[in-house]
Amino acid sequence: MTHQATFDIRSRGRGTLEITAEVAAIAAASGIATGVAHVFVQHTSCSLLITENAAPAVRADLETLARRWAPDGDPVYRHDSEGDDDMAAHARSVLSGSSVSVPVGGGQLLLGTWQGIYLWEHRSAPHLRRIVVTVSG
Amino acid sequence: MTHQATFDIRSRGRGTLEITAEVAAIAAASGIATGVAHVFVQHTSCSLLITENAAPAVRADLETLARRWAPDGDPVYRHDSEGDDDMAAHARSVLSGSSVSVPVGGGQLLLGTWQGIYLWEHRSAPHLRRIVVTVSG
Amino acid sequence: MTHQATFDIRSRGRGTLEITAEVAAIAAASGIATGVAHVFVQHTSCSLLITENAAPAVRADLETLARRWAPDGDPVYRHDSEGDDDMAAHARSVLSGSSVSVPVGGGQLLLGTWQGIYLWEHRSAPHLRRIVVTVSG
Repeated sequence: MTHQATFDIRSRGRGTLEITAEVAAIAAASGIATGVAHVFVQHTSCSLLITENAAPAVRADLETLARRWAPDGDPVYRHDSEGDDDMAAHARSVLSGSSVSVPVGGGQLLLGTWQGIYLWEHRSAPHLRRIVVTVSG
Repeated sequence: MTHQATFDIRSRGRGTLEITAEVAAIAAASGIATGVAHVFVQHTSCSLLITENAAPAVRADLETLARRWAPDGDPVYRHDSEGDDDMAAHARSVLSGSSVSVPVGGGQLLLGTWQGIYLWEHRSAPHLRRIVVTVSG
Repeated sequence: MTHQATFDIRSRGRGTLEITAEVAAIAAASGIATGVAHVFVQHTSCSLLITENAAPAVRADLETLARRWAPDGDPVYRHDSEGDDDMAAHARSVLSGSSVSVPVGGGQLLLGTWQGIYLWEHRSAPHLRRIVVTVSG
């Protein structure tokens, strides 16, 4: 059995937005008891991640580290069509990834106590981002 | 068809532990001939990875590189509730990821010759880690 | 329903090769309307990624950043059995990952406009790489 749903979310520029509730609602609506929920973002300058959901400082620190992993406006970049944050955003998207997937059991997402699902916007400006959730089981 | 099983593994502190045999056994027990085995760890300070299974030096070198990617006790961190290795562990977990997935064919994991599945503990102290394997096909 | 197909691709040494068309053809051949296409590479010194498909400079810049994330011939490496690019290749493979997965809807890959699927060869020499695509739905 497969259930698929799409939703849009408007980012506020660089940073994380929790989408656990949206994904959990789609998993619940699927009626699937046991399976996997696959979450995919259809863009290459933002990404998805699963990380600690209690202390906001964790996501702030991830942002700080991402500036090292892929700095804005690095002089080595050849790609800068959309500004200093353009290539940094693509690189951070590769490191974090375009999808996450979470097991479903007893009709619910089997996340650990401290795990949340986040959209990670890597562009400085707010963007409308489209996310596709596919629950199979 | 979907088959799901959970197992716990006790890490010995920072480092990798191979879990290929555990995942392969669950895939075999599923009776699924063709599909995908999804492996998920329910924690945010360890991760899963697929890497070279022959030379232990590869995993030692990954640990060395991880110290650059996300150093312990970096003065920029705002999050250090559980010590110097706390934020480093969350960041390494994001880089490596909370899940891996492997195709199943002929009732077996279709790993390449040199591929093994590993739990990567990022905390200094030993931890009990829960892993959920979902085989669909 | 599950459909699985395997194909080989010869890399030209370090760099990216687009495989979107190959994966899309397998998804179309599956006859699956709604589901997920899972793409897996059976090697630990190359990886798969989804990134921007229009500007080749993006992939060139990713290569430049990868040299920082995991330099060739770093003196800290203990593993160098196959040369200066050996450990660098394994590390880049972990950062980018051995698999990507893309939702399928209306019988097609639900990639965003600017998303392409790439094999990322991390070894300097050309290699024959085997990719397994499993479409479930």
